[in-house]
Amino acid sequence: MGRWIGVDVGGSKVLAGVVTGTGEVTRTAHRSTPGRLVAAEAVEDTIVDAVTAVAEGEPVAAVGVAAAGFVDSDGARVVFAPHLPWRGEDVRSRLEQRLGTPVLLDNDATCAAHAEATYGAARGASSMLLVTLGTGIGGGLVLDGRVWRGEHGMAGEFGHMQVVPDGEPCECGRRGCWEQYSSGNALVRVARARLSVGPTVLTELCDGDPDRLTGPMVTEAAAAGDLAARAAFASVGRWLGIGLANLVAAFDPALLVVGGGVADAGERLLTPAREAFAGSLVGSGHREVPLLVPAALGRAAGLVGAASLAGAAAG
Amino acid sequence: MGRWIGVDVGGSKVLAGVVTGTGEVTRTAHRSTPGRLVAAEAVEDTIVDAVTAVAEGEPVAAVGVAAAGFVDSDGARVVFAPHLPWRGEDVRSRLEQRLGTPVLLDNDATCAAHAEATYGAARGASSMLLVTLGTGIGGGLVLDGRVWRGEHGMAGEFGHMQVVPDGEPCECGRRGCWEQYSSGNALVRVARARLSVGPTVLTELCDGDPDRLTGPMVTEAAAAGDLAARAAFASVGRWLGIGLANLVAAFDPALLVVGGGVADAGERLLTPAREAFAGSLVGSGHREVPLLVPAALGRAAGLVGAASLAGAAAG
Repeated sequence: MGRWIGVDVGGSKVLAGVVTGTGEVTRTAHRSTPGRLVAAEAVEDTIVDAVTAVAEGEPVAAVGVAAAGFVDSDGARVVFAPHLPWRGEDVRSRLEQRLGTPVLLDNDATCAAHAEATYGAARGASSMLLVTLGTGIGGGLVLDGRVWRGEHGMAGEFGHMQVVPDGEPCECGRRGCWEQYSSGNALVRVARARLSVGPTVLTELCDGDPDRLTGPMVTEAAAAGDLAARAAFASVGRWLGIGLANLVAAFDPALLVVGGGVADAGERLLTPAREAFAGSLVGSGHREVPLLVPAALGRAAGLVGAASLAGAAAG
Repeated sequence: MGRWIGVDVGGSKVLAGVVTGTGEVTRTAHRSTPGRLVAAEAVEDTIVDAVTAVAEGEPVAAVGVAAAGFVDSDGARVVFAPHLPWRGEDVRSRLEQRLGTPVLLDNDATCAAHAEATYGAARGASSMLLVTLGTGIGGGLVLDGRVWRGEHGMAGEFGHMQVVPDGEPCECGRRGCWEQYSSGNALVRVARARLSVGPTVLTELCDGDPDRLTGPMVTEAAAAGDLAARAAFASVGRWLGIGLANLVAAFDPALLVVGGGVADAGERLLTPAREAFAGSLVGSGHREVPLLVPAALGRAAGLVGAASLAGAAAG
C-alpha cells in the first residue's frame, strides 16, 4: 500500500494532493504552470516537483493527473491543450518513467465530475453536468451514473462552443467561444475594460496597471463593494446561465454543478447565472428545470477525481 | 398479431405508415398538421384519420407516435411543443381510447435516432448524434448503444440552443435559437429576403408572393441553378456545421447523421456544413473528427422508430 496522489494541471496552476480512499485531501502543494510557449518537459518537471513535495519520501501507489486539455480515449496522451504546451505528447508513460509509479491521465473536468458525483455535490444524482470556471471552462458529464468521456475521450469541451458569431478571439484559434464570456479570463477582461472609465477599488489592487489584474483581485474588489467588479461578475454569471441553458436543452441532466476558482464568489456568480438560465432555457415553464448548485469539493475536485480513478485502476 | 403503425407529427405534416419488423415501410398516408393556434383535439383527429387510412380495416397491434415536442419521461404527455397546440395534454391515453390499441409516444427525433441507429445510417455505431432539419431542428442522441432521452425525457432539443445573442425571434419565445438559422423555416426566411433584391426562379415558383414561398420551392430553385436559393442553402449549411461543431465539442460522438426534409438537398446542404464544421470544431487538427453523413431512412425515420419502439413495447 502507498499513497494516492492527484495532480491538477490547469492553465495557470499545478496543484498536487494526497487523497484518501474516501476522497479527503490530507496534504497539498501548488506551483505555477509554465506558459504554453515553453517545452512540454517544463510542465512535466513541475508535476514531478509537486508530486515529490506531497509524497514526502513515502511510498506512492498511484498518481492521477487531471489535465486541462483533450486526453485520448486510452488515457495515454494529451492530444491538444489550448492553455498548455502539450501537443500529442505521451505524458502518461513519460511521467510513469520519471515517477516510478502507475499514472492515470484524464481530462481535468472529467476527473472533477467523477469526484463531485462520487464524493461531492452530485452524490446520488443519476445524471449531472459539471462546468468549472477557471482560466477557461472545463466540463464533465455523468449520464446513467457513469462519466461520459466521448467516443474519443473528448466530450465535455463546453467552453469551446460558439456563443457569439465573430466574437472575442479565443486561445483555441477561433472566435466567440463560451469561455471568452464566462471564465476567469472573461472576468478579468470585462473588469479591465471598466478600468479605463475611472478609478475603482480594482485600480488600487492592480497598482493602476490593468495588465496586472487577476481574477482573485476582481473577486476581492466585488466583495468590497466595487461596482466595476460586480458588473464583471454579473456579465460572467449571465453568460454562465445562457450557456447552461444551451447544455440543458441538449442533455437534460438532473443537476448542474458549477466549480472552479471563479465559483469561489458564490452567489455573486450564481444568482445572475440562475436568472439568465431560467430566462434562456427552452420550455422552462413546461419542464422540470435542473437545480444549479455550487461544487462541493472546491478546487481539489480535479485532483481528488484523478487520484480516485488512479487508485481504483492500480487496484 | 396485427400491424405496427408509426405516425410522425411535425410542425407542418402528419405522416403515418405501416412498418414491418425489419424497419420497412409498406404503406403511408400524409395529412397537413392543423396550426398551433387550433384546439389540441384537431391534431388528434388528424392522427386518427391518418392511422385509419393506412390500417385499411386490418388489425393494428401497436401505434407509435413521434411528436415534434417535449414528451415526458413516462411517454404519456406532450408537455411543450413550439409548433403544435399541445400543452401538457395526455395525448397517449386519449389516442389509446380513440384507436383501441396500445400507443407509444416519444419525441420525433428520439424515434428517428432509434431508427437510424437500428436500421439506418448509424447501424453499428456505438454513439451517434442525429439532427433533423424540418420546420425546426430535432435532435436525438445515442450513447453506448442506447438512446439518451434525458433525466426528464427532454434531451436533444438542440434547435433551441442560442447561437446568436439577440438574434432572430423563435416560436419558442426566445431569440437567436439555432433552428432560426438552420432549418426549413430558416431556408425560407433567407431565400425570402433575397426576393426583394430582384426576380429569380424563386419569384416564379411562388407567383411573386414571398409569403407563398416554401422550403421545397427553395430546394427546387437551387437544383435549377437559382443563385438566391443556393445562397440560402449555403447559409443554412454553414449554420448547420457551426451548430454541429458545438455539439461535438460537448458530446464527442462517433457519427453525425443529418436528416429531415431540408436534407433532401443532399450535398448542397452537407458540403457547406462540412466546411463550416471543420472550421468551427475545437482542436479539429488534433482529434478524430466524426463523419457527417445523411440519414438513410429519409422522412420515414421518425415513424419507423416510433412503430419499432411501440411494437417492442407491445410485445
